[in-house]
Amino acid sequence: MSTTLPPSVELREVGPRDGLQVEEPKSVEERMGLVRALAAAGFSAIEVGSFVSPKAVPAMAQSAEVVQACKELGGFRVVGVALNGRGATDAVAAGVDEITAGVSASEGYSQSNTNMSIEQALVHVEKMCEVGRDGGVAVDLMISCAFGSPYEGEIAPSEVAKVVQLARDAGATTISLADTTGMATPRGIGELLEEVGTDVGMHFHETRGTGLANVYASLLGGVTRFDASVGGLGGSPFAKGAAGNVATEGVVNLLDDLGVDTGVDLVRLLDAATLLHDLVGHDLPSPVFKAGPRIAA
Amino acid sequence: MSTTLPPSVELREVGPRDGLQVEEPKSVEERMGLVRALAAAGFSAIEVGSFVSPKAVPAMAQSAEVVQACKELGGFRVVGVALNGRGATDAVAAGVDEITAGVSASEGYSQSNTNMSIEQALVHVEKMCEVGRDGGVAVDLMISCAFGSPYEGEIAPSEVAKVVQLARDAGATTISLADTTGMATPRGIGELLEEVGTDVGMHFHETRGTGLANVYASLLGGVTRFDASVGGLGGSPFAKGAAGNVATEGVVNLLDDLGVDTGVDLVRLLDAATLLHDLVGHDLPSPVFKAGPRIAA
Repeated sequence: MSTTLPPSVELREVGPRDGLQVEEPKSVEERMGLVRALAAAGFSAIEVGSFVSPKAVPAMAQSAEVVQACKELGGFRVVGVALNGRGATDAVAAGVDEITAGVSASEGYSQSNTNMSIEQALVHVEKMCEVGRDGGVAVDLMISCAFGSPYEGEIAPSEVAKVVQLARDAGATTISLADTTGMATPRGIGELLEEVGTDVGMHFHETRGTGLANVYASLLGGVTRFDASVGGLGGSPFAKGAAGNVATEGVVNLLDDLGVDTGVDLVRLLDAATLLHDLVGHDLPSPVFKAGPRIAA
Repeated sequence: MSTTLPPSVELREVGPRDGLQVEEPKSVEERMGLVRALAAAGFSAIEVGSFVSPKAVPAMAQSAEVVQACKELGGFRVVGVALNGRGATDAVAAGVDEITAGVSASEGYSQSNTNMSIEQALVHVEKMCEVGRDGGVAVDLMISCAFGSPYEGEIAPSEVAKVVQLARDAGATTISLADTTGMATPRGIGELLEEVGTDVGMHFHETRGTGLANVYASLLGGVTRFDASVGGLGGSPFAKGAAGNVATEGVVNLLDDLGVDTGVDLVRLLDAATLLHDLVGHDLPSPVFKAGPRIAA
């Protein structure tokens, strides 16, 4: 761990996918309203949809139309989730710039939530990477339960590193590590970074209130890619007690103060959060959305 | 800033005062039920009452009886809040081991909330320290708005350091720094510690979700005393948008994982939080209370 911070990081905004997928379905135009507000705030990457069965995740139906509208809008990397080769093919056909694929570091979580072993899931990853390569589309592989699992408890960093290596072998362009159940801590982050290096994205949740502590520890560890969700929405419906993603407003409020450039304008981001609040019609679990920036603009 | 953490810290549990003072008044026996549960969890210092006008803070009436019951219980430092010489005299008479006194680093906050300048407030501090000295009771001086103020915005660390020095000159036994309005960040903490040294307690709020990030940054900076509030209750009724104190369960969950000894048993602490939940009859803003420890015992 260092005591210096990186000069800049890339935030990948996942609200239109990770946030909205747990809400009542919204129209393409409503979803694009949120995406436009986020693009105006300066994000260079936005996860906008999911190429999965609309029966399983009704709120992510019509993601191809959302991606198409995003490509017309332009100005940011358009990211879509896929779970298998068919989803990846649909995502590429829709025009995404990047696919988020997934595999778990936890055998128990993999079995419970996908009815597949990690090994079986990696076969799908390989297929998705092949589809991505053929279509000239990057594949970011999100490793769930990278900091622990409700099934096995602690997962040794060396075990996670094995999955990272298998994912790289399968052709993943980049790797992200997800704290699916809020078990990440600065200790675990430090130990994992020693095994896998700093060229990973981090995807944190607020299940145990550690989101910003973990972002800070990751920055000190040299990480420069983070996911965050406007308004703090999201969270796996499969992880017991899982709370939302770390709120993007909180991350930007912190990083602005630390002098770490995110490229994101906090005031415009809060405008997007207000739009999201009106769209979903309920409270958002985002302290900075409620309290405002620490120093008003 | 260092990259090593202290082996142990002292947590001062402030829930029975800072938490309960914003709730509907509870009986002495109800308040003692919470204190007993906290003492059983292992705290060496508990702030249990406030020696202020019961008209101003009805929930803190009968604090002398609470202190008396705590002394009979024994096993921890009994802490009470006072705002002036009369309150300090009452606190000493009731038998507290430590008085928490206060002054603000923000002239605007001091004027708005106490109708006194910082200079005038320091006269009261001097009086309280005199009362404490005469009674053989320690006085911890809590400096509010130490990390910024909604009135002046940033407050220069050198200005805060001046107030710290005046408080030491006035006879304060120890100093604590309060993030009254959630403006503390790891940057501000580092800058302030350079000015005032590490022999300070930290009192953080979750107004902008930074509580645990700030605890972690303070630990890296060498701080070994922290306030926290069971269930995350509390928060100044005078600070716009202020959310509760950092939840003790979250701090212990984090520090257990970091290998920093708190002397507090997390499972018993969660029992105390459950008792508090039943006592106040509403949701508690504490992620770890909802999600449980990261690894179940």
